[in-house]
Amino acid sequence: MYRSNTCGELRISDAGRKVTLAGWVQKVRKLGGMTFIDLRDRYGITQLVTEQAVEVGREWVIQVVGEVVERQAKNAKMPTGDIEVKIDTVTVLNKAQTPPFTIEEVSDGGEDIRAKYRYLDLRRAPLQRALALRHRLAQEIRTYLDGQGFMEIETPYLIKSTPEGARDFVVPSRMNPGEFYALPQSPQTFKQLLMVAGYDRYFQIVRCFRDEDLRADRQPEFTQIDCEMSFVEQEDVLNTFEGMMRSMFKNALGVDIPNPLPRMSWYDAMDNYGSDKPDVRFGMKIHEITDLVQGCGFSVFDSSAYIGAIAVEGCAEYTRKQIDELTEWVKRPQVGAKGLIYIKVAADGSIKSSVDKFYTPEQLKAVAERVEAKAGDLVLVLCGAKRKTQTQLGVLRIEMGGRLGLRDPKVFAPLWIVDFPLLEWDDETQRFYAMHHPFTAPKPEHEKWFYSDKKEDLERVCANAYDFVLNGTELGGGSIRIHNADMQSRMFEVLGISKEDAEYKFGFIINAFKFGAPPHGGLAFGFDRVCALFGGQETIRDYIAFPKNNQGRDVMIDSPSKIDQEQMDELFLQSTVKE
Amino acid sequence: MYRSNTCGELRISDAGRKVTLAGWVQKVRKLGGMTFIDLRDRYGITQLVTEQAVEVGREWVIQVVGEVVERQAKNAKMPTGDIEVKIDTVTVLNKAQTPPFTIEEVSDGGEDIRAKYRYLDLRRAPLQRALALRHRLAQEIRTYLDGQGFMEIETPYLIKSTPEGARDFVVPSRMNPGEFYALPQSPQTFKQLLMVAGYDRYFQIVRCFRDEDLRADRQPEFTQIDCEMSFVEQEDVLNTFEGMMRSMFKNALGVDIPNPLPRMSWYDAMDNYGSDKPDVRFGMKIHEITDLVQGCGFSVFDSSAYIGAIAVEGCAEYTRKQIDELTEWVKRPQVGAKGLIYIKVAADGSIKSSVDKFYTPEQLKAVAERVEAKAGDLVLVLCGAKRKTQTQLGVLRIEMGGRLGLRDPKVFAPLWIVDFPLLEWDDETQRFYAMHHPFTAPKPEHEKWFYSDKKEDLERVCANAYDFVLNGTELGGGSIRIHNADMQSRMFEVLGISKEDAEYKFGFIINAFKFGAPPHGGLAFGFDRVCALFGGQETIRDYIAFPKNNQGRDVMIDSPSKIDQEQMDELFLQSTVKE
Repeated sequence: MYRSNTCGELRISDAGRKVTLAGWVQKVRKLGGMTFIDLRDRYGITQLVTEQAVEVGREWVIQVVGEVVERQAKNAKMPTGDIEVKIDTVTVLNKAQTPPFTIEEVSDGGEDIRAKYRYLDLRRAPLQRALALRHRLAQEIRTYLDGQGFMEIETPYLIKSTPEGARDFVVPSRMNPGEFYALPQSPQTFKQLLMVAGYDRYFQIVRCFRDEDLRADRQPEFTQIDCEMSFVEQEDVLNTFEGMMRSMFKNALGVDIPNPLPRMSWYDAMDNYGSDKPDVRFGMKIHEITDLVQGCGFSVFDSSAYIGAIAVEGCAEYTRKQIDELTEWVKRPQVGAKGLIYIKVAADGSIKSSVDKFYTPEQLKAVAERVEAKAGDLVLVLCGAKRKTQTQLGVLRIEMGGRLGLRDPKVFAPLWIVDFPLLEWDDETQRFYAMHHPFTAPKPEHEKWFYSDKKEDLERVCANAYDFVLNGTELGGGSIRIHNADMQSRMFEVLGISKEDAEYKFGFIINAFKFGAPPHGGLAFGFDRVCALFGGQETIRDYIAFPKNNQGRDVMIDSPSKIDQEQMDELFLQSTVKE
Repeated sequence: MYRSNTCGELRISDAGRKVTLAGWVQKVRKLGGMTFIDLRDRYGITQLVTEQAVEVGREWVIQVVGEVVERQAKNAKMPTGDIEVKIDTVTVLNKAQTPPFTIEEVSDGGEDIRAKYRYLDLRRAPLQRALALRHRLAQEIRTYLDGQGFMEIETPYLIKSTPEGARDFVVPSRMNPGEFYALPQSPQTFKQLLMVAGYDRYFQIVRCFRDEDLRADRQPEFTQIDCEMSFVEQEDVLNTFEGMMRSMFKNALGVDIPNPLPRMSWYDAMDNYGSDKPDVRFGMKIHEITDLVQGCGFSVFDSSAYIGAIAVEGCAEYTRKQIDELTEWVKRPQVGAKGLIYIKVAADGSIKSSVDKFYTPEQLKAVAERVEAKAGDLVLVLCGAKRKTQTQLGVLRIEMGGRLGLRDPKVFAPLWIVDFPLLEWDDETQRFYAMHHPFTAPKPEHEKWFYSDKKEDLERVCANAYDFVLNGTELGGGSIRIHNADMQSRMFEVLGISKEDAEYKFGFIINAFKFGAPPHGGLAFGFDRVCALFGGQETIRDYIAFPKNNQGRDVMIDSPSKIDQEQMDELFLQSTVKE
C-alpha cells in the first residue's frame, strides 16, 4: 500500500503521528521559505508543508512521508483543516501534463472540452459527489429489496427485436448470418416470464437501450431499477416501493418523507396541476372558471370549451412589459397558447384586468376568489380545449413557480399518481390505444365498463397503473398486469388488434401465460433520473460516469466509429453509406 | 395481497390459524374421500387437504383459504411437513396447460425442450436454488466491497470497437451512418480511466460480450465481477479479494476457507500440477524423473527433453485392457501424448513396468520413490518437451483424480497462482507476447531483467499478475498495471510494437495516463463460473436465468432473428447473405 491514510481522514487527534499519504497535487503555494501543497484524493484534501525545495506541479501524483502537526491557521471549512503534514520525503509517482481546465468545484472548462477529457472532469468534487451518491443509492436499493425477499436476477442483453415501441439497437450475429439480436428497451418480457416461472419477487438494476432521436438529457443507454411481484394487488406494490423510496431518502439523504405518501388520481393531477407529473412543492393550483366567465360577451371565452386560471402570488405589480413577455412566452410553440388574459388584484384589493370591458369588478372578483388569489396576486387565464389548456396552464404554473423560487431542489415532494385511464381514444385513427401497455389490467371495480361496447364506458375505465412523481418529474411507473387469458383477449379486441396480429406481436408471452401465470404487477424507476433528483440536479449527465452527447456520441473515446471491412464481411454486411 | 403466508413458512406452531395461500399445484392425490394437493411457490411446498370435490390440475395457479392443522402422517423431509391446510375455499386464479415435461427435482424433459420452455424449467427446485445462490452471492460481494470503500460505478455498454483481443459484437448507429458501437469485452479501459479520475476503488458486477466461436459452456454474454484499486501493491489486491471470497464462502455456504489462502507460483503450478489452474483437492503431483531414466538405452526417453510421472493411488491392479484404454485416452488429440509408460508397484512391493527390459527393478523403484508411489499404486509416465508434457500429465492427473473420486464438488480448495511470466516467447513469429496484457507491470525486483536486451533475461521476468483458482478452474485474475510512461514505452519496445502502432492501438489510454495516473491494479472474476462452482456444478448454464445455446441462440425467444428491410435501411446496411 502506498499510503497509511487517505487525504480525508487525519484529524487533530492524529497530531504527532508519522503518516504516508498519496494523491494528486491540487494546489502549490509558496509563502516565505515554506511550500504548502494541497494533496487530494477521493476522500478529501490534506495540507502538506515543507521548507525543502520540492518540484511538483498541478495534478502530479505524489507520495509523501511526514508528521501530522497542528496547524497555526486552522481552516474550519475542511474536515482536515486543523492539521497539516510536515513533509519528510516526497516521491513523485507520476508527473502530469497541465490539465486543459481547472480541477475545481466550478471548472473554467467548457462543456465540450470537459466531455473530451471526461476522466479529468470526473476528478472534480461535484462529479465525485454525484457518483458517490449513485453508489450509495444503488446499495440502499438492493439492501432494501433483498430484505423484502426480492431476488436479483440478470436478464439477457442480446435479445430479440420487436416491431413495437421505440427503435431497437440491433446486433448482427456472425454465427447466424443475416440475423440480428436486439438490445433490450427494458426487461419487461423477461420479468413477466420470471413471474410465470415462480420467482415471486424480482429486481434488477439494469441497463436499457433506446435508439431514439435524442432530446436534451436523454441517453441511448440508461439504467432502470426494474421490479416485479407475484400474488399482489396495486396496494402491495405501492406500499413496497414507497418503502424503498423512504429508505433511500432516509439513508442516503437523511430526509424523512411522509408515511404514507400522498396519492393523487390522474384526473385530479390534470385538473389541478395540468400535468400527470405535478410538482407539489408549491400550490398555485389550476382552477376552472368557465362557469364564471362565459356568456358575458367576450367571444374568445364564449367559444372555448374550457377556461382555467392560476393565481401567482405577489405579482400584481407586473408591468405591461412583463405581461407582454409572459404572453409571448405562452404563445411559443413549446407551450402553444393562443394568448394570455390577466387579472391583477392590487394590494388595496382593487381589480385590473386585460378584459375589464367585458366584466364587472364583481365578476372578476369572483374569479379571483375561485382561484384563491389574495391582494397583491396576479391571476393568469388561458382558454381552449380542456386537457390542452390545462396542460398549458401546467407549463405556465411550473414557469411561474420557478420564477418565484418555489422549486427548491433540496425540498422533496414525492407522491403517487394513480387511477390512470386504461385507454386513450385517438380521433385520427378512430380507435383506442393503451395508455400504459396492452398488458395493464383495468381496475376490478371498472371491469363492467371494460366489457361494455359503449365508447363512453370504455373511456372511463381506469387502470391499475401508477407513477412515482418527484418534484415535477416522473421517476418511475408500472402496473398490475392482466394474467387472465379472457381479459387479455378482450383487451386486444378493444384495441382493435386481431387474433392473428396479437399472436404475431405477443404470441410468445401469451403462450407462456397458458402454463399458469400468477397475478402479478411491478414497476420500473429511471435510476439516472432518481440519482439526479436526489442530488438536487435536473440533468442526469453528471450522474453517469461516461455519458454520451446529444448525437449519441462518446466524444472521449470517439465512438461510434467505422469498423474494418473484414469485420463487415464476417457479419455479412455492406454499408450503403456513400463515401 | 393474495396470500397471508407463503407455501414455505407454516409450522406446527401455526396450527389452528386461518390462512390464505397461493401458488402452483405440484401434485394432486385422492385417497378415500380425501383430496391432497401439494401447493408450491418459491418458498416451499405446503400440503392442502379437503373432502370437497375440487377440479384442479398440475401447475394450475390457485388460492386457498383454510385452517392450519397438525398432520396425522408427518413428513420430516419437508420443513412444512408437520402441518397441512384444511381447505375452506379454493379459487382458481389461472388454469394451466399440462407442461411438456415434469416440474420435479429431476425432470423427464430433454435439454432442448427444457430450453424452449425455459420459463417452466426455471420452476424446478435445482434452478431456483441456483438462482437464489447467485442472488445471495451478488449481495455478499457488494456488501463486502462497499464495506471496503469500493464504489460501484457503471461503465458504458455502447463503446468502441478495438482491433485487439477477441471479436467484438458491434452495434450499427442509425444517427451516425456507417459507424458502429461495440459491446465491451470487459470494462478494462474504463476502470483504468476511473483510477486516473481518482475514484480509488471501483467495482461493478457487469455484463461482458465476446463474439467467439462458442465452445461448450461458453456464453456470448457473461457476467464479470470487475474491480480496480489505486495506490496498491499486489499484496493489497490479494488480501482484499481473498477477503471477499472468504466472506462469500462463509456467508453463502457456511464454509471456512484458509486464512491466508495458499499461494503458488506459476512455475510450481506447472511443474507440480501441469496446469496454471491446479486442482489441489488431491495430491498426485507430477514429478520429473528425467535424471533417473535417461541414458539407459530406452531411446524414447533418451531423446526426450523431459520425462515426468504421477502416482495413481491403488491402481496397481489395472488390467492390460485398462492400461490400453488409458493409453488411447492420452493419445487423443485433446491430450496429444505419443504414448504412455506405466510402472506398477504391486501390493508386495514388486515392480512391473512396460519398460522392464530397459531398467533394473532398482531403477524403477527409484522412480516409484521419486513420485511417492506406495505399494499398490500405479505410476504413469509421459515424455517430450517440458511444458507440453507437464500439461499432458496435468490433464491425465485430473482424469485419474476424477476416476478415483478425488474431485468432490462440495470440497473447496481455493488458492492464488502468482509470479506469472511477464512475457511469452513465440518461436514462429520470433517475438515476445504479453502473457496477460501489455499494461501488466513486471515485478519490481525483476526490473533489471526487464530492461536487459538478453532473451533469457526477459524470459525470466515475472509479472505482478495473479489468478484466483478453485478446484481446477480459474475463477478470476488480474494484475498490477504499469503506470509509468517510460516503463510502458519499454514494454512496447519489448513486444516489438512501434511508437506509431502503440499510438494507434492504445493512444487513447496512454494519453489519459499523461495527466497523472496513480499506481493501480485490479482483477476480474467470472461471476457465472463463481456461482456454478459455489453451487458444486461444473456447467454454468443452470446459473444463468436465460442462457444461450452453443450456437449462440436463445431458443426460447428464437433469437437472433431477421429484421425488417426498413430497419436495415435506417441503419444504412445491406445483408450479403444469399437467400
